[in-house]
Amino acid sequence: MKTIDIGILGLGTVGSGVVKILQDNAQKITDITGCKLNVKTVVVRDVTAKRNVDLTGIELTDDFTKLVTDDDIKIVVEVMGTVETARSYIKQLLNAKKHVVTANKDLIAQHGPELSELAKQNHCDLFYEASVAGGIPILRTIVNSFAADQVESVLGIVNGTTNFILTQMTQNGLSYAQALKLAQEKGFAEADPTNDVKGKDAAYKMIILTQFAFGKDITVDDVKLEGIDGVQLADINEAAQLGYTIKLLGIAKLIDDKLDVSVGPVLVPSSRPLAAIQNENNAVLVTGKAVGETMFYGPGAGELPTANSVLSDIIAVTKDIVLETTGSRFNGYVKNVALAPASDVIYPYYLSLVLPDKPGQMLKLTEIMAKQKASFNVIKQTGESQGTARISLVTHTMTEAQLNAIKAELKEMPEMQLLAAYKVLEG
Amino acid sequence: MKTIDIGILGLGTVGSGVVKILQDNAQKITDITGCKLNVKTVVVRDVTAKRNVDLTGIELTDDFTKLVTDDDIKIVVEVMGTVETARSYIKQLLNAKKHVVTANKDLIAQHGPELSELAKQNHCDLFYEASVAGGIPILRTIVNSFAADQVESVLGIVNGTTNFILTQMTQNGLSYAQALKLAQEKGFAEADPTNDVKGKDAAYKMIILTQFAFGKDITVDDVKLEGIDGVQLADINEAAQLGYTIKLLGIAKLIDDKLDVSVGPVLVPSSRPLAAIQNENNAVLVTGKAVGETMFYGPGAGELPTANSVLSDIIAVTKDIVLETTGSRFNGYVKNVALAPASDVIYPYYLSLVLPDKPGQMLKLTEIMAKQKASFNVIKQTGESQGTARISLVTHTMTEAQLNAIKAELKEMPEMQLLAAYKVLEG
Repeated sequence: MKTIDIGILGLGTVGSGVVKILQDNAQKITDITGCKLNVKTVVVRDVTAKRNVDLTGIELTDDFTKLVTDDDIKIVVEVMGTVETARSYIKQLLNAKKHVVTANKDLIAQHGPELSELAKQNHCDLFYEASVAGGIPILRTIVNSFAADQVESVLGIVNGTTNFILTQMTQNGLSYAQALKLAQEKGFAEADPTNDVKGKDAAYKMIILTQFAFGKDITVDDVKLEGIDGVQLADINEAAQLGYTIKLLGIAKLIDDKLDVSVGPVLVPSSRPLAAIQNENNAVLVTGKAVGETMFYGPGAGELPTANSVLSDIIAVTKDIVLETTGSRFNGYVKNVALAPASDVIYPYYLSLVLPDKPGQMLKLTEIMAKQKASFNVIKQTGESQGTARISLVTHTMTEAQLNAIKAELKEMPEMQLLAAYKVLEG
Repeated sequence: MKTIDIGILGLGTVGSGVVKILQDNAQKITDITGCKLNVKTVVVRDVTAKRNVDLTGIELTDDFTKLVTDDDIKIVVEVMGTVETARSYIKQLLNAKKHVVTANKDLIAQHGPELSELAKQNHCDLFYEASVAGGIPILRTIVNSFAADQVESVLGIVNGTTNFILTQMTQNGLSYAQALKLAQEKGFAEADPTNDVKGKDAAYKMIILTQFAFGKDITVDDVKLEGIDGVQLADINEAAQLGYTIKLLGIAKLIDDKLDVSVGPVLVPSSRPLAAIQNENNAVLVTGKAVGETMFYGPGAGELPTANSVLSDIIAVTKDIVLETTGSRFNGYVKNVALAPASDVIYPYYLSLVLPDKPGQMLKLTEIMAKQKASFNVIKQTGESQGTARISLVTHTMTEAQLNAIKAELKEMPEMQLLAAYKVLEG
């Protein structure tokens, strides 16, 4: 039987998970691929550190070049993280004709096309299913199952940290600060949670999803970005009363053949399955012109879920090696799509504001709305304190250009404070 | 550019959808596969019938042998239905070295292994993604993404007709008969709805899912089967008060390395995403030892969703033709698993009964339960009329053997009538 030697770069959570799954399911993997997959070499920074995985028969080294120069090693799994170092290592590996599997979303979001091209030139596979939505096999599903369809939108909960925080706020009435602290205690948020709570992590995942669903390379500057650090419990409660659950959603959608990509808090109708996705779980909704709405749900992170996605890539590479069909791009769909202007991007919005609690303020607010030809179907005073009133409203659909104009006008009114302007998902 | 000629067997809903998607998305399909896919011949029973699809340039014939003898035709899509005729046709096609894509779940559930073997002998592909859960790409996902994992359970809503009926009963308070009538009016149920409402359609899908998830061939006799035609509105309402939604679920799960497969009404906690799957939609939950719980949701039927799954198969065949890698089984996982005995199958159950409304009846019931060492955590009298009381209760977990013994004892008590004994899905 053919043995395929594997190298692993990094032995943190995901790397350990990969070793464990390969050990636990060796027989099934052999049954399916007809090959024995053998972890030969693991490269780590500190070879003396304690490991919670059985490394019998595996060479542990801090010398990266061993992966490049060992002719036995056919596949290298990059789970070390970082952008520039990982990029340099993967380039060396591809040039040495090693197939590469990575879970590194920051790297793929920023340098995916360059690395994919290099892989192709070297007739190597470069797969990265684990880079988006952990245990959910969303990338391969888009490649395989939407090839003949036109994707109209991809949206979802692609960051477990922020979904955990919002779930805790929604279900247990925690403040943002309390929920963040709980997430950190449970290991769902890092000590510096900036990348998660500001939406940057979700934006990276949306960049990759956009490549797969629409064939378009975008950068993080093309993603309209808002985090959850400004979400107040009062808005979550108000949304609940209106029949909505606030979720941090990435949304990439076609509007008249132009693309709009955003990450931000969104009001999701509480009756929809997406609203029921709780805590650290992820869910991605793909709507195709033919197939309609589909949703893929699962754990967004974690040792074994993410490692399982890495394994699905390793097995895909193995099948390609056996069939001698390596070197096809993971995502072969490329299309030149323009980004939609703000005047084309239409949503209903949830707004919440603080106004002075005195006559004429509501008139001023409605005048600003009317001037931009924006109308609303719900307006509500939800609380007040120390001479101020808290107002929340849900608008009819309006363009992002209208919203921006309203925001600009409100900025000119120092006594009015706009607390939230979140998209509302319909039906 | 390479042109691949396709034949289609049957031009009903799905067949028409396949022609439409191929016409609408020709450019994208060519971009991805590098081939032009051309529908050359469509075989129908009645060539004079009116069609709602553009057949320009396509030969319409009632002569099946044209597909077998035309050397240009590489792929045949079987969407004619029936079991024996389709089986005979597909055998002839495979022996003539045609790759076959089918949406025929009855056929695959009953003769899948035989046809897969014949395909392999002829180095042909035989794919059938559309046979389970319409637009949801569940089979290929299990093949690709659970290859290195151990699936612990596959369960879900795999029949849109019954989910529509139960949703209408739950949300709009319709009786079973009213909801069935509405389903028939809307085209979600056939004039003779037996196969759907009795659970047989769902059982066929569970047979196919069981092959993919556990590598085991079972027959419909191995599936414990109960339909929804006995579900009363009173039970749906009582379940709702207890925090559950009644769904017709197929469940295939491993219990101590033995397999149990059932189809029947199940109480699903209303907070779970599965409970939010409404009307004709389907959802399949796959739980893997490594990955944990994942769910795949989408339209369970319909012209374009099902046709899109057929197209994903056609594109997979096309890639195999280009790479000269045809002839691999769709599902290569085979494992000898025994079926679990009733004494190993453990669930909590929801029971509802009618008793005479007179002293001592509840005592008799609790004696029967106690004799089988079954206990319950909720018991409730939910209504009464004409001297009878309606009782509902939720048991602690018990074995199917215990449940069967309780059922047998209740049969001996002519004044007590067991209305429902449904599994309860936990947490």
